[in-house]
Amino acid sequence: MDDPKPHVVIVGAGFGGLRAAQALRRAPVRVTLIDRRNYHLFQPLLYQVATAGLSPEDIAHPVRAIFRRQRNLSFRMAEVTGVDLGARVLKTSTGDVPYDHLILAPGSTSNFFGLASVEANGLPLKDIEDAVAIRNQVLRTFEMAMQEKDPQQRRAMLTFVVVGGGATGVECAGALSELIRLVLTKDFPALDVKEVRIVLLEAADRLLAAMAEKLREATAEILWHKHVEVRFGAQVSAYDGERVVLKGGEVIPARTLIWAAGVQAAPLVAGLGERGPQGRVRVTETLELEGHPGVYVIGDAAWLNDPEGTPLPMMAPVAEQQADCAARNLVRAVRGEPQRAFRYRNRGSMATIGRNAAVAEVWGFAFSGFFAWLAWILLHIVELIGFRNRLVVLINWAYDYFLYERAVRLIHAREIHTGPPAARRPAHEAGAAAGR
Amino acid sequence: MDDPKPHVVIVGAGFGGLRAAQALRRAPVRVTLIDRRNYHLFQPLLYQVATAGLSPEDIAHPVRAIFRRQRNLSFRMAEVTGVDLGARVLKTSTGDVPYDHLILAPGSTSNFFGLASVEANGLPLKDIEDAVAIRNQVLRTFEMAMQEKDPQQRRAMLTFVVVGGGATGVECAGALSELIRLVLTKDFPALDVKEVRIVLLEAADRLLAAMAEKLREATAEILWHKHVEVRFGAQVSAYDGERVVLKGGEVIPARTLIWAAGVQAAPLVAGLGERGPQGRVRVTETLELEGHPGVYVIGDAAWLNDPEGTPLPMMAPVAEQQADCAARNLVRAVRGEPQRAFRYRNRGSMATIGRNAAVAEVWGFAFSGFFAWLAWILLHIVELIGFRNRLVVLINWAYDYFLYERAVRLIHAREIHTGPPAARRPAHEAGAAAGR
Repeated sequence: MDDPKPHVVIVGAGFGGLRAAQALRRAPVRVTLIDRRNYHLFQPLLYQVATAGLSPEDIAHPVRAIFRRQRNLSFRMAEVTGVDLGARVLKTSTGDVPYDHLILAPGSTSNFFGLASVEANGLPLKDIEDAVAIRNQVLRTFEMAMQEKDPQQRRAMLTFVVVGGGATGVECAGALSELIRLVLTKDFPALDVKEVRIVLLEAADRLLAAMAEKLREATAEILWHKHVEVRFGAQVSAYDGERVVLKGGEVIPARTLIWAAGVQAAPLVAGLGERGPQGRVRVTETLELEGHPGVYVIGDAAWLNDPEGTPLPMMAPVAEQQADCAARNLVRAVRGEPQRAFRYRNRGSMATIGRNAAVAEVWGFAFSGFFAWLAWILLHIVELIGFRNRLVVLINWAYDYFLYERAVRLIHAREIHTGPPAARRPAHEAGAAAGR
Repeated sequence: MDDPKPHVVIVGAGFGGLRAAQALRRAPVRVTLIDRRNYHLFQPLLYQVATAGLSPEDIAHPVRAIFRRQRNLSFRMAEVTGVDLGARVLKTSTGDVPYDHLILAPGSTSNFFGLASVEANGLPLKDIEDAVAIRNQVLRTFEMAMQEKDPQQRRAMLTFVVVGGGATGVECAGALSELIRLVLTKDFPALDVKEVRIVLLEAADRLLAAMAEKLREATAEILWHKHVEVRFGAQVSAYDGERVVLKGGEVIPARTLIWAAGVQAAPLVAGLGERGPQGRVRVTETLELEGHPGVYVIGDAAWLNDPEGTPLPMMAPVAEQQADCAARNLVRAVRGEPQRAFRYRNRGSMATIGRNAAVAEVWGFAFSGFFAWLAWILLHIVELIGFRNRLVVLINWAYDYFLYERAVRLIHAREIHTGPPAARRPAHEAGAAAGR
């Protein structure tokens, strides 16, 4: 508190916030990083937790471990509930935090587009708990299906609907198909695999819309080989936990609906300025809030168009490049130097659809198949934080690959209670009943 | 159903049930193994999950994976709610299961000895969810303590009371001390480690009561070196989440109480016969229920005295040896041969208290220190099921050992919802609030 250096507060320990904090490690500032979780989540591999390929611990790394050697940074685990831009104070669940400069990187949440029944009964895939809930649901459904005599009911149990043809939906559907066809068929010898349906619903007419046409077609073909039914022009209008209702009236009986159809900016940025697509808040070319120099917004929550007038995509590379830019601009501001405009360099993107199969677009070069898959694996291993995580993930993958296995197929039989002691008991009891 | 072979039903996939099922792999019977979990839990390492040393997935292995090659066995995930010994039918959450022979290995649950306030606010350590809840509580408490200005409140947050001086309590207290002193002090540089208290309460006058006196003293000394305060003759009478009240009136302010003071037989065996200590049901020398030949009870739920008249201990080796005996007796019964009496061979026991420190009693030979610790590691690695689990656990241990690290210190920010879709939402919402 008696440190005369300017106080920088960073909200969010996702790809953007983490990178910004690291970029400030030698800057003449005090940094406070705030997140409601105590870990950084490697979101691109979340679908592998959902499909029993990796443990939650493999893709999450404690924030304090990452920053142990960064002397100018302190971490605060708290939920940020609001920003008072006039007073330069952040409201959090554990008290007010004043700041001199602010970097907001709160990320995004699932967007159900106002479909309350889908929000109530569908399974989103945005955080660790979502992924474990999907894993539980898929494995538990198989256990229940094996004991179900009614073929109608059994088919509904064995129908898995994934909504959204973006990277998350495609990767999730592909991995689910492999989990079922390569692993669960061995676990459940009495299962007739022809009764299993994986349906990928996409409202538009293409998968992985941002990719080259050649790769979009390769994706559809790979999914077809994996027996994933891809349906274009299919919009979900309701889901009661038993029946998926499409616009137009078609009904698909399914006990599992995974929602990967869209995200929206975190609610924190709601009152901070003009809002664009997905509720993102408009930022200037220097990544600051209009009229509030020194307040940067980066990543999924920020709205900035590329030179062609298209909003920048909500993905990790954008957040990381913006983090670097915001951190540099912040240091320039401290030194009284002028701010510089952000320019996004698109290095490409990739998606994996399963064993030996991925699509990748790197530096304008589009390729698919085994080598894209190998590139995907190498990239993700390198980017995963922490030596141990890398090694364990590699072992898990190698094990799964050579033995056609999935190691992590555990069903948590009741809620893991995490609240304070007083709040804990009801969940415990509810869980004991639900565990049946 | 048209298989003329006798139908053996085994309840429980713990050490006893698993071993019994494996022992019957070449027997002329059909086996159905029932458990409410879909995995076998390696309980001796549960305290390492609670203290962030291992992931839940490291010590759990899917039952279906274990038995994939055993043709005469099928697995059924269900909660067993009762036994109709007359009709030879098992009542389960997914319907009735008739049997010809029965092996009950339902294990044990935590025993709070009627202390409702402790049951409501203390943290037991019997299953994966318990262990993750303790890990959450410890890590969250540290995060909160760092933001707590009131020194009284902070001390209560940093006081961890472990109740029970058996193997679980001793191992838990030792591992907790190492987590805090070797890892969390680095994570929380502002923390004054002298404010941290770990108190181990034991109602009797000794730790690890079954071990030789030399080892009991070594245990107390190792714990003392680790700054664990061991209190003998200390009986808990109440705990409201804030204050531990001892018989005699002493009060220890503590936000965390880990309950490792006792277990009792699973409630399933309640109506099946004469009940002994810890609610265990009396079995004959051939491990059958009195008056019900062909119904075996093994492990923690079975009550049988050794030749000196002491009940056999509730631990894995007893359960496994009884499983072998019950399986052999069952095959003898099928063949019309006479049953044989069970005889327990005590091969010894061990407990680890942390880095380089364990106590072991093997074939009557008592030793402690580094070699006991090494023996403990080797034994547990060998016994852990599955090549992958072994390798990953070994890596985690080596990593922790050489880098003085704990890899898995994640706080799950809200309940992991596991129920059916309809039941899921309330937990989700409650969890979002509790996550702050």
